[in-house]
Amino acid sequence: MITLPVAGRSEHYTVQPSKIIALGLNYREHIAESNSVQVRGFTQELPSEPILFPKTPNCLIGPEEEIVLPSIVARYNFEEPRTDYEGELALIISKRCRNVAVSEAYDAILGFTCMNDVSQRNIQNGDRGGWFRGKSFDTFGPIGPRIVPIDEIGDPQALAIETRLNGATVQKGNTAQMIFSIAETVAFISENFTLERGDIILTGTPSGIGPLHPGDVVEVEVEGIGVLRNRVAARSI
Amino acid sequence: MITLPVAGRSEHYTVQPSKIIALGLNYREHIAESNSVQVRGFTQELPSEPILFPKTPNCLIGPEEEIVLPSIVARYNFEEPRTDYEGELALIISKRCRNVAVSEAYDAILGFTCMNDVSQRNIQNGDRGGWFRGKSFDTFGPIGPRIVPIDEIGDPQALAIETRLNGATVQKGNTAQMIFSIAETVAFISENFTLERGDIILTGTPSGIGPLHPGDVVEVEVEGIGVLRNRVAARSI
Repeated sequence: MITLPVAGRSEHYTVQPSKIIALGLNYREHIAESNSVQVRGFTQELPSEPILFPKTPNCLIGPEEEIVLPSIVARYNFEEPRTDYEGELALIISKRCRNVAVSEAYDAILGFTCMNDVSQRNIQNGDRGGWFRGKSFDTFGPIGPRIVPIDEIGDPQALAIETRLNGATVQKGNTAQMIFSIAETVAFISENFTLERGDIILTGTPSGIGPLHPGDVVEVEVEGIGVLRNRVAARSI
Repeated sequence: MITLPVAGRSEHYTVQPSKIIALGLNYREHIAESNSVQVRGFTQELPSEPILFPKTPNCLIGPEEEIVLPSIVARYNFEEPRTDYEGELALIISKRCRNVAVSEAYDAILGFTCMNDVSQRNIQNGDRGGWFRGKSFDTFGPIGPRIVPIDEIGDPQALAIETRLNGATVQKGNTAQMIFSIAETVAFISENFTLERGDIILTGTPSGIGPLHPGDVVEVEVEGIGVLRNRVAARSI
């Protein structure tokens, strides 16, 4: 059970989504680099609508918990096994909703936090479960360190976002660079699926993705929210 | 909230999975037909391990509830839009577990029921969310009509399974024909993801998949469980 403090309020929030829906390509500079590392399904073209994939809730861990690389990957003898960090702004849905208008999307948002969309690339690019499986291993969804309610965040489309690996900045962007705005994303997803209170939406990662290794410390920082820090375990599961 | 009666007990079961994991190709004759309707990612070869995909829990509906075709599909002007039924045996997980041995897999199963893995093929085969999205629209996961506990089902690998469309038999198989057994499936999935009590696993569909149209009545019957019946609504959402 992951509980996170809520900014400006003396309460905690229990993270318990019925689903986690993420965007595949939502920062322009990430499209080019994704093509270069040959992430399957990525092209250099701008998508005409949000590209969706799910992470299953077993992936969630809290701040300071360990990311553990899955031992099942060793079975496939990948030539270059690679598990990446992806720093992202995440949002929590406030109420059951469907077909939300873009103009009313902020009413459907409870608040924001940081997430690391940890991704095993070889599985993601393969024919055996693809994106969902490569991104849903246990511990592949660090979240936190706190929830900032929508009325406390300021403009969520003007937040600096940065990922650091062992102290060095590796991703640096701003939520102003999103291809699909937060409101457009909520509206589109809710045209596909009824959203429930507590559901999590990941808004995509800026450029600068790269591999994680045992012992690494990865930090995702979003302006106004804080730093989500996790170590990569030496053991695997 | 979907509640189903439990066979042989005076109690009801509330369906509330943290995730729904399904098998893409688990009956030999379905592989050939899937190739013929060009379901992306399918080949005529037998898979070497289970092919997994998720359905998000918003898809769940109970017996006699309506399957409603999603209006968002009309936007894409598919030449031949097609939403299919897929009758399946589903199982419910009994406890939190990980890395379950094949020999202990039945201890991790609470019981069995029928499911219809309703699938929008054009979305499933596309680059915009693929399998997960085409199979996760609201109402695309009818379940029921009751839960049969594992100690009441007999041999779960010897059950007749049949799907009827407007009274005519369209799928007819037996769980003996599965490529990966129920125990192998539970073991493999639990090597990837921690399973929680209440999680649902779909074990694949026999040959005979075909399209649904407004007004159709579709029935999935598994021996010893019962008949799951749903009508396709005239309206769309």
